[in-house]
Amino acid sequence: MPRFYPSVRTLMGPGPSDVHPRVLQALSMPTIGHLDPEFVGLMDEIKSLLQYAFQTKNELTIPVSAPGSAGMETCFANLIEPGEKVLVAINGVFGNRMKENVERCGGIPIVVNSPWGKPISPESIEEELKKDSEIKILAFVHAETSTGVLSDAKTLGLLAKKYDVLTIADTVTSLGGSPLKVDEWQLDAVYSGTQKCLSCVPGLSPITISPKAVQKIKNRKTKVQSWFLDLNLVMGYWDSNNKRSYHHTAPVNSLYALHESLLMLKEEGLENSWKRHAEMHEYLQSQLTPLGIEFLVDKEDRTPQLNAVSIPAQFDDAQTRAYLLKEYSLEIGAGLGDFAGRIWRIGLMGQSSTKKNIDLLEAGLRSLLV
Amino acid sequence: MPRFYPSVRTLMGPGPSDVHPRVLQALSMPTIGHLDPEFVGLMDEIKSLLQYAFQTKNELTIPVSAPGSAGMETCFANLIEPGEKVLVAINGVFGNRMKENVERCGGIPIVVNSPWGKPISPESIEEELKKDSEIKILAFVHAETSTGVLSDAKTLGLLAKKYDVLTIADTVTSLGGSPLKVDEWQLDAVYSGTQKCLSCVPGLSPITISPKAVQKIKNRKTKVQSWFLDLNLVMGYWDSNNKRSYHHTAPVNSLYALHESLLMLKEEGLENSWKRHAEMHEYLQSQLTPLGIEFLVDKEDRTPQLNAVSIPAQFDDAQTRAYLLKEYSLEIGAGLGDFAGRIWRIGLMGQSSTKKNIDLLEAGLRSLLV
Repeated sequence: MPRFYPSVRTLMGPGPSDVHPRVLQALSMPTIGHLDPEFVGLMDEIKSLLQYAFQTKNELTIPVSAPGSAGMETCFANLIEPGEKVLVAINGVFGNRMKENVERCGGIPIVVNSPWGKPISPESIEEELKKDSEIKILAFVHAETSTGVLSDAKTLGLLAKKYDVLTIADTVTSLGGSPLKVDEWQLDAVYSGTQKCLSCVPGLSPITISPKAVQKIKNRKTKVQSWFLDLNLVMGYWDSNNKRSYHHTAPVNSLYALHESLLMLKEEGLENSWKRHAEMHEYLQSQLTPLGIEFLVDKEDRTPQLNAVSIPAQFDDAQTRAYLLKEYSLEIGAGLGDFAGRIWRIGLMGQSSTKKNIDLLEAGLRSLLV
Repeated sequence: MPRFYPSVRTLMGPGPSDVHPRVLQALSMPTIGHLDPEFVGLMDEIKSLLQYAFQTKNELTIPVSAPGSAGMETCFANLIEPGEKVLVAINGVFGNRMKENVERCGGIPIVVNSPWGKPISPESIEEELKKDSEIKILAFVHAETSTGVLSDAKTLGLLAKKYDVLTIADTVTSLGGSPLKVDEWQLDAVYSGTQKCLSCVPGLSPITISPKAVQKIKNRKTKVQSWFLDLNLVMGYWDSNNKRSYHHTAPVNSLYALHESLLMLKEEGLENSWKRHAEMHEYLQSQLTPLGIEFLVDKEDRTPQLNAVSIPAQFDDAQTRAYLLKEYSLEIGAGLGDFAGRIWRIGLMGQSSTKKNIDLLEAGLRSLLV
């Protein structure tokens, strides 16, 4: 069996995004032990860099040692006690996954649906919160990766506070790409992924947990059903004031890479990164409109880094994606769920969010129309 | 904040072990999408290489996208239905963690304790199996990383079959380093880690599940409590005959590295690797005995790749480990649980299992006695 050498792709799907050589280089530094004093120093720096990315002072701000789905499960499994009611706002695939998580954690989901392709309606959320004082948690997706819709996380966060409800927010696709201010918006449990706008390798899930949510986790009446994701135990390893008690073996090299990608975000500046993502979205639109490609989502509701576009009749879905991959080594994403076969998802996340990439995609699509 | 450059360590603790430059190089290849046809081909190769390492034909042989603790939880969460009795053999830290997993998955643990530093007694296991026909699963650790004891997984596996009980076996430290024959020994759910005798980076957990265990998982009356670890869903992504339905974003680069480390194992040959680990253990003993360092475990019960040795009175535990790290950039492991402060754990796993490493450790320890 030969060694594996992947093609060099341009990654414009829903993630992973292009990873900078600096990050790949950091990834391949020699492995050290997960209790090595040097590694403990690195952990502290990662915490501080993540606090910057999330715009929070939350002490419990760490990368979960597994992909975004595990970050999601960490928040639900730790915050929900069996029998608790959780209000879940659904406007796409990942809202549905949240509902599934509530059920599997023994919670009672109360669902507010918004149409796919539309943002979550704060009014219908408030209606439910007003109606049912037993609701303990509001869960919602900030940027729905299945549709490219950005919901108003600030309004939802402050609304939850008004009704004394904790929030769980999915920021997998928004972190680093769209404004996200965890403390100002008073979000309680927020998870993300490394392979989107942070342009790090996939496999880690940054989370941040508010002091109020930490109190709830510490005072649980029941044990968290997952040993691996139990934050009461994970805290013992990540807490700088603790003796770093062993919980599990950290994914050392992936954390080197995360550190480097967060450094790059800090060098660019969070606001500059948000601005770049917004500008590249505009540029993408200016390039796709002449090809007859329209956006699924109303302009004011779009997340700039994940663009859902309708597939015009001149293009065959699967054939076009295969052509771009073969002839341009360029990946775009297919539609999910209800949108399979009807839309493409074009990612402009992190390092992938450049004019160069957009021009290449435009050239590839245009070549099919000749 | 400066970029992070780790020291170049010699890793002789309980893991991670030394990672070969070939594996680090593979790790840093450009990231591709987790649904890319090239990646799907890589997944098939990894499955086949893992089948070789585990000595199994099990179709469901995959790496879980998270560290060994998550592999453990995958086995327990999928195999146990609430209320089922699980016989847990405990002779160290990881047996205790198994019990914790049984409880959190809603199972009823029945514990058979063996002294720390001794192997699991098949006689006491059989006694329990004979006594209680409601036991559905036998769980045990093959190589206890906390004590360096190797239990007789073959006898335990065949015993479980005699009483028509499924087995869950922890082979985190044994896979690749000690004989392990999943099919011949009829083990049903076996998990491991990448950062021990495979000498890959930490963060993945290879598992293999027998057809009988797969049937149980497919026919569950209740949903698996973890969405992320639900093998009914994960199978849809890893099954070669399936359309690779998206579940979560695979840790692409870590899987490049796993592929490369498994190729290296295959090049050396599994039997040769087992032999090398056994020989290096002998060599370690020959080098440590003159320094007055004795082994905790009886010779016939030792796992050659993880050596628990008593700390002689001339050495201070923490000071010695700090000295080796500072002066030799060499890591050895501390004792866990009951053995904290009383033993060191010296890993000779995978790429770390060399004469060169042993000589360096011997030189370091000897220099303290002058």
